[in-house]
Amino acid sequence: MQQEFASVEAFSEILQSLPDEDTAARAAAEDRNGQLTKPPGALGRLEDLATWYCAWRGDPRPQITAPQVVVFAGNHGVTAQGISAFPAEVTAQMVLNFEAGGAAINQLAKAFGAQMDVRALSLDHPTQDITQGPAMSEAEFFDALKAGWDAVDKKADLLVVGEMGIGNTTSAAAIALALFKGDAADWVGRGTGVDDAGLVRKAEVVTRAVEANATSQPDGLEVLRCLGGREIAAMAGAMVRARTLRIPMILDGFICTAAAACLEVARKGATDHIVAGHVSAEDAHSKLLENINKTPLLAMGMRLGEASGGALAMGILKAALACHSGMATFAEAGVSDG
Amino acid sequence: MQQEFASVEAFSEILQSLPDEDTAARAAAEDRNGQLTKPPGALGRLEDLATWYCAWRGDPRPQITAPQVVVFAGNHGVTAQGISAFPAEVTAQMVLNFEAGGAAINQLAKAFGAQMDVRALSLDHPTQDITQGPAMSEAEFFDALKAGWDAVDKKADLLVVGEMGIGNTTSAAAIALALFKGDAADWVGRGTGVDDAGLVRKAEVVTRAVEANATSQPDGLEVLRCLGGREIAAMAGAMVRARTLRIPMILDGFICTAAAACLEVARKGATDHIVAGHVSAEDAHSKLLENINKTPLLAMGMRLGEASGGALAMGILKAALACHSGMATFAEAGVSDG
Repeated sequence: MQQEFASVEAFSEILQSLPDEDTAARAAAEDRNGQLTKPPGALGRLEDLATWYCAWRGDPRPQITAPQVVVFAGNHGVTAQGISAFPAEVTAQMVLNFEAGGAAINQLAKAFGAQMDVRALSLDHPTQDITQGPAMSEAEFFDALKAGWDAVDKKADLLVVGEMGIGNTTSAAAIALALFKGDAADWVGRGTGVDDAGLVRKAEVVTRAVEANATSQPDGLEVLRCLGGREIAAMAGAMVRARTLRIPMILDGFICTAAAACLEVARKGATDHIVAGHVSAEDAHSKLLENINKTPLLAMGMRLGEASGGALAMGILKAALACHSGMATFAEAGVSDG
Repeated sequence: MQQEFASVEAFSEILQSLPDEDTAARAAAEDRNGQLTKPPGALGRLEDLATWYCAWRGDPRPQITAPQVVVFAGNHGVTAQGISAFPAEVTAQMVLNFEAGGAAINQLAKAFGAQMDVRALSLDHPTQDITQGPAMSEAEFFDALKAGWDAVDKKADLLVVGEMGIGNTTSAAAIALALFKGDAADWVGRGTGVDDAGLVRKAEVVTRAVEANATSQPDGLEVLRCLGGREIAAMAGAMVRARTLRIPMILDGFICTAAAACLEVARKGATDHIVAGHVSAEDAHSKLLENINKTPLLAMGMRLGEASGGALAMGILKAALACHSGMATFAEAGVSDG
């Protein structure tokens, strides 16, 4: 399927007509799984991951050989409200660090044999301060979605997207509050390390942001435009593009999950091709994952973003497929099957 | 340190004089960790793993490039009591599968770049039925410890040991009951898949085994000799050898943890160079880990043994060191540190 889009409306239409998993490939993969030299179910969640991956790839016996990691970076006008422990300049500085290979994600991508790409999105033009109105115009939102869509390598067989953007846990918390309600305090965390007073201020800012962009019913894409950042919209664009290309994905942390949540609210099941890589130390992440019915693979207390938690989980998924596709069957190995 | 041993007594002496971690290397590693381009603590448990590894290797900035996996196999006389869902012949059949590269552990070792070795321990001579008395004579126990000791590659920089042995969850449950008391029912699980009636029988067998080998105070090494199997004793031998060689290790599942527990009871801190790779679906594993104060890295619902859970966690540890040793510092990258 070679879909393109030229407007947010066209993106929304693609979102409503996404391809589903290949049920024949799933059945063949489950059949194979039952013949492998191990007691039934003994590889636990690795077995579920393997058959899920087979179903989305449309292949009952694949390996993962070409994973891709993309980190999107954006700046946020809401940093004017003093909600981050780091200055906004750090976004651009970290982009240089990604490009030079010095960040955590560079090491993780390399460790698991993944191609690593970085997309800096108009860093000199932060989004509008969301306490004052929508983060992005329709045109800016389109450009961000398209940047994500275009960043996906058609030849990738696994994709992890992540983000860098000082202030973007505030943006993600506002998205979560708009989509799933509750109190702002339930959705804010310490981000890169704000103190107690900072946390209170952050919750106030999130409340004001949602009030400034209120709609009667949450519309996933409109919430993403009004409360997201360019890097968050780009992650959503990449998620939809990966679905059209049948590339399974792994979610990263709280901000990445906020992007997925906008898609799920816009179209239930839109992220069925994505597993949750980890639950982060950002307080609201586990709650956000629950809201979109995802169970994380890892719980390492990470809270770095930049695709790091998702990239770490690539090792788990690669291992699951290595077992599924590489093991001998009882018949091949001459082992009694109980 | 080039230690050898020629008796169980000599092994016990080595166990009482194990080398400790390198506190200077730990301090240097912690110092480096504080300078890396991330918010403090943002890599969560990966940071603790990295400094722990540095401390045991005596190197503030190492990578993991030569991991080793060893699977020990042994047969158990207690299978005469009908406590397994698979026949005892499967132990030897699976050894052939390991040697041919068809098992799950072969795929996992390959996925994480580990050398894979298999040691079949007198499969034609099962241990004595533990409901009748000690599993091994002093000489048999020594041979098993020595097989483990000798299997460790001095050039390895990470070691995972695992086991194959039909009947050995019964042996491990008996070890746990002898070491930590409670009811036999608390320590037995379904192993490769026994049914409800099998579970009741297994608990009865475990109770009888501990009664048949009762001592007033649990002596870790004597419990290992009386209730263990050759593959369990070999794992313990390898753990001690790795400690003398400063090779950090990752625990596998319930049976591997039972071997570690014998060492911990014999000498508190004997397994400080070992992290828990995962918590398995075998019911008593989490309880056994708690008894030796280990928190598992992964929880994937696996219950295969053969080093599979520990091998999966190699990916996490390799990634932790890749970040620790490969990332740029704030000064190197020109990033503001908040």
